[in-house]
Amino acid sequence: MTAMPEDALLDRFAAIVGPAHALRSEIDIAPYVTEPRGRYGGSTRLVLRPGSVAEVSAIMKLASETRTPIVPQGGNTGLVGGQMPDGSGREVVLSLSRLNRIREIDLQSNTVTAEAGVILHALREAADGVERLFPLSLASQGSCEIGGNLSSNAGGVGALAYGVARDLCLGLEVVLPTGEVLDDLRKLKKDNTGYDLKDLFVGAEGTLGVITAAVLKLFPKPKGRTVAWLGIMSPEEALSLFTLATEKAGPALTAFELMSERTLSFVLKHVPGSVAPLKESCPWNVLMEISSGRSEEDALALLDDIVQEYMVGTDNDDVPYFEGVMASSLAQSDAFWHLRESMSEAQKGEGGSIKHDISVPVASIPRFIREAGEAVASVAPDARVVCFGHMGDGNLHYNVSQPAGGDTAAFLALYPAMNHAVHEVVRSLGGSISAEHGIGRMKRDELIATAPPVAIDLMRRVKRAFDPANIMNPGKVI
Amino acid sequence: MTAMPEDALLDRFAAIVGPAHALRSEIDIAPYVTEPRGRYGGSTRLVLRPGSVAEVSAIMKLASETRTPIVPQGGNTGLVGGQMPDGSGREVVLSLSRLNRIREIDLQSNTVTAEAGVILHALREAADGVERLFPLSLASQGSCEIGGNLSSNAGGVGALAYGVARDLCLGLEVVLPTGEVLDDLRKLKKDNTGYDLKDLFVGAEGTLGVITAAVLKLFPKPKGRTVAWLGIMSPEEALSLFTLATEKAGPALTAFELMSERTLSFVLKHVPGSVAPLKESCPWNVLMEISSGRSEEDALALLDDIVQEYMVGTDNDDVPYFEGVMASSLAQSDAFWHLRESMSEAQKGEGGSIKHDISVPVASIPRFIREAGEAVASVAPDARVVCFGHMGDGNLHYNVSQPAGGDTAAFLALYPAMNHAVHEVVRSLGGSISAEHGIGRMKRDELIATAPPVAIDLMRRVKRAFDPANIMNPGKVI
Repeated sequence: MTAMPEDALLDRFAAIVGPAHALRSEIDIAPYVTEPRGRYGGSTRLVLRPGSVAEVSAIMKLASETRTPIVPQGGNTGLVGGQMPDGSGREVVLSLSRLNRIREIDLQSNTVTAEAGVILHALREAADGVERLFPLSLASQGSCEIGGNLSSNAGGVGALAYGVARDLCLGLEVVLPTGEVLDDLRKLKKDNTGYDLKDLFVGAEGTLGVITAAVLKLFPKPKGRTVAWLGIMSPEEALSLFTLATEKAGPALTAFELMSERTLSFVLKHVPGSVAPLKESCPWNVLMEISSGRSEEDALALLDDIVQEYMVGTDNDDVPYFEGVMASSLAQSDAFWHLRESMSEAQKGEGGSIKHDISVPVASIPRFIREAGEAVASVAPDARVVCFGHMGDGNLHYNVSQPAGGDTAAFLALYPAMNHAVHEVVRSLGGSISAEHGIGRMKRDELIATAPPVAIDLMRRVKRAFDPANIMNPGKVI
Repeated sequence: MTAMPEDALLDRFAAIVGPAHALRSEIDIAPYVTEPRGRYGGSTRLVLRPGSVAEVSAIMKLASETRTPIVPQGGNTGLVGGQMPDGSGREVVLSLSRLNRIREIDLQSNTVTAEAGVILHALREAADGVERLFPLSLASQGSCEIGGNLSSNAGGVGALAYGVARDLCLGLEVVLPTGEVLDDLRKLKKDNTGYDLKDLFVGAEGTLGVITAAVLKLFPKPKGRTVAWLGIMSPEEALSLFTLATEKAGPALTAFELMSERTLSFVLKHVPGSVAPLKESCPWNVLMEISSGRSEEDALALLDDIVQEYMVGTDNDDVPYFEGVMASSLAQSDAFWHLRESMSEAQKGEGGSIKHDISVPVASIPRFIREAGEAVASVAPDARVVCFGHMGDGNLHYNVSQPAGGDTAAFLALYPAMNHAVHEVVRSLGGSISAEHGIGRMKRDELIATAPPVAIDLMRRVKRAFDPANIMNPGKVI
């Protein structure tokens, strides 16, 4: 058990960053100890906002000497409490937001070297400005930071063609719990010099060290991009369509999102200005995007080719219904994407929601949807499944809204039972209970209870090897 | 220091796999203790060839109890001695070759689950048979095995568009030094449940555990593939061409190989039946491949488009010369690739060679070639640089042949000095001294001496955490 830090110690930490960047008043601290969903409040006596890697190093050195627990924080958009201090007041929050320089863009190597506090949207804009694409894209990109994206191995809509945050990262700069700096900011696509330390820090949610900068991949900016909104009857049909689109488009298939009828109906009901994309409501909706390195016309032709071939395939009794519309303008394309991106938000209008961030093998998506539906009904027969997500990645945000007009508190009391029921289905299909949001505080106990003991044991050995004093974001992940 | 294993202990190991698969005679053992380049001979009293994961587990359990060092081995094609026992006779070789089942191909999830002993060529053929591509491709693919490919994080020619072995691996089954089995054979594209153990085992060269099976990504088989052979004046021009090709083709650019004039001349001289691809000899050659998910014509059109645009760009004084030919048939395409793949072999006809497997940021390739040339001249003024490789990955096989007619032994005595001089250039450019072959025995001392001490310290902590008794392939990597 760590003792409450004394004022004298807080002064020593504050001296490293200077008084303007050491927040100690309740009002200054508040934004750092509340998170978007309001589920993981915490408490701290000190938020440090270092302005350089040297300052981060000095902070960790002092933390190590005094065994002070440190909670690294980026844009504070995480959904599993990984960036929140606990309630004891003993932990110091380390905000990386001031480390927000883009250190270099290398157009020939197609890399950008960015500090941890660079906001994702700013990074995407910087790439766009030099005719490159940085493909990581999340709903929270206006405020999330790249250090947090890497620490939580963020996914999002660009992952299908370009990979998750891990895949986009070539090199890292990390401050270790001791304050030592690991400078591994390499721009190399091939490097087999010893163990892959980089991928340990990526996804570790700040429990092994503090990511302060990264070398990230850039891609040629597509010359054309086009999307279609398709209405279909079943997840099985979505899988057929996805298989066809993958075969025909390969890496040009840059998004394949699935949404249930109910999910869309919530958006149309609660998001002002939203318009139904199809004439008739369909049981399932697919948002499919094709990108082309050549031209807009080329993207359109390929998308049309896929849709036409699929429609020919549906001229039989097995596939009774199909409707589709291609975005005819950039504005319409944006409108389609806006529908997709409003889904989490729209759900708030329907009362309490129990959330899951799961992945299964793509081939198992239909079976998951069927069996998870049964699992939900067994816990709360009148609950309303709100199923949508990155089907191409096998990743669904399988949320469950409370029964219409029901009691919110009573419904939310079912959270553990509902999670358990849905996650049992996930596990039976070889899936993951955290596809892209991470473990944080939220899923730590469940991870430890349900992951193979051999894996947990190895993770604990890694943690002990890197952070023997357990000062790096304790109580998270493992 | 481990004691020499007694006969009684060897009998216990042999009993696990049965006498037919426990090799103890010198003649049976010989193929397992000599490697392709003949540089890393070793010695062992026992080669075990288990036929199941359970047998691998039992072997490791016994090894752990008796502190017997184990050297895992795949197809024995490694170039850095990672698969070779030392000369003491104390180490037992564990061949994974009998674990050669393809357990499953999942066409909708686009995955194949293969055991460690599956030969790479067989895996590629199996994928091809179901209209899929497994893109890992190496000169040794007729005998290397997928377990070794993963343990050494193999690269090869497919890496530009599809990634290295690490990028192709979704899940692993690993037998730990204790004999425990880590079953992490997941097919998930997104999975954020704790630390990334998989990527620690990939590239660890058998020093942390024994990979027994893996889930690997499959891709749609391209409908068209076409290659061009281009003659250019300088590495700078190669970089311009690569930048243009990347911008126009994106992931459709599936190979970009660079070869010096001398390299090609050695092939034409020593490889029977080889024909010069261009009318005139050029200082530098590029082999560029475009793949299309649509058709052969589509690939050809895109390749032509790139070449035409580049040629227009060369109509100025800065770019004085350019010559190119597109393969007009599959046979010609194969012939071009054969020239490229014969380069290592052809060099043998020119006497002793000092080899390097380096990578630098792609933008630094021209500078590397210039500065490394000076470095070589400073060590051996008459030595002949043989420079070729995967330029698109920033990865060159920068070999140096002995002076024509010179003394081979005297030249090879320069090996350490030459490596040092070339690797100093690599390090000054933020590069890697082992891009795709690994560390093994060959580069271990240099890695430890030149990598950042912080990184070496972390790697040692990982090694100790996973293999405290140091029985997993000791003396390799770290």
